[in-house]
Amino acid sequence: MSDIPEEYLPLIAHVQKRVSFSDTEIRTFIEAFQVKKIKKRQFIIQPDFVATHRNYVVKGALRGYTVADGGQENTIQFAIEDWWISDYNSYIYQKPATMFVMALEDSVLLQIDHRAEEQLKQSGQKFETFFRIMGERSTAYMQRRIIRNLTLNAEERYEEFIKNYPLIAQRVPQYTLASYLGMTTESLSRIRNKRVHKKS
Amino acid sequence: MSDIPEEYLPLIAHVQKRVSFSDTEIRTFIEAFQVKKIKKRQFIIQPDFVATHRNYVVKGALRGYTVADGGQENTIQFAIEDWWISDYNSYIYQKPATMFVMALEDSVLLQIDHRAEEQLKQSGQKFETFFRIMGERSTAYMQRRIIRNLTLNAEERYEEFIKNYPLIAQRVPQYTLASYLGMTTESLSRIRNKRVHKKS
Repeated sequence: MSDIPEEYLPLIAHVQKRVSFSDTEIRTFIEAFQVKKIKKRQFIIQPDFVATHRNYVVKGALRGYTVADGGQENTIQFAIEDWWISDYNSYIYQKPATMFVMALEDSVLLQIDHRAEEQLKQSGQKFETFFRIMGERSTAYMQRRIIRNLTLNAEERYEEFIKNYPLIAQRVPQYTLASYLGMTTESLSRIRNKRVHKKS
Repeated sequence: MSDIPEEYLPLIAHVQKRVSFSDTEIRTFIEAFQVKKIKKRQFIIQPDFVATHRNYVVKGALRGYTVADGGQENTIQFAIEDWWISDYNSYIYQKPATMFVMALEDSVLLQIDHRAEEQLKQSGQKFETFFRIMGERSTAYMQRRIIRNLTLNAEERYEEFIKNYPLIAQRVPQYTLASYLGMTTESLSRIRNKRVHKKS
């Protein structure tokens, strides 16, 4: 498969880790995806518009967030290399989104649109299996997040995050991380300073 | 299919709304489930034990919750008739649970165990499709919950809950609802009293 553009190689590795596809199946799978290059600060999803795509990150970093009436931002999702991002409630039901999804860095995505995904699922059981695994793992991930939000204090939520996602913690702006963890930027700053002093 | 025990009829209706199964497929599907009757206060999942089953509620009400070191309880999930409940992070990965799942009323469940579910998924594409739809909808449901928890104040979270799930709000103890909404029982009580006075 030496003629495959290099942007697709991480997605192929990602898929083969989950379901064993033949070369033909891999080709069918990746043909449903288009390469999309976006600049830092560019939006791929906005509230009130239907999220048309599911997005796999080849390179870069993105953030999904809501903006309240008073202007306060809440980060719902981050995505860096080898992660997926969309407004899933919007994408799955094809209803208007409630989130923005914006690039935090210049990024390269592989995008599949809703209709192409439906066709892929219908065209063979293994494709269905792949998206079933995606759905199950997202459910498990979000359950862990709901439990952490309800049960841990701010300091514990931060510790847990940098343990599980050290690469994201280093790359995203402090105010986006604070709003993901459900705390103010000042609280996050205090927690980080306290840790630095503990270590030294 | 007049020989099918009546406990299975709600599950059959539930499945047929999502995927169109033949009579034979429906039989294969429901044969993977066992009827389980449990008494009020009985546990079906406990922390540190792997959640062996996915549970469909034929009758009754259940609650999934965590208990913090200090004894504080946080409700992660409710389930009444026609809902599913488990510790999904535990069930999907077959790792130790972090939640309790307890009956709030005498309940009748249909249970499928992890191995039977895997066999069912492998035995035909439509079964895979059904569980894929379950995973996707759980993801969307949990995303809505994460957004509400991060963006709404206590009063708004309560209003949203009773609008979306009026039947659950009426049936579960006040302290379990308060902990689901991430507030104290006193706050929930204040919010409920305020509403009663507004209406009268």
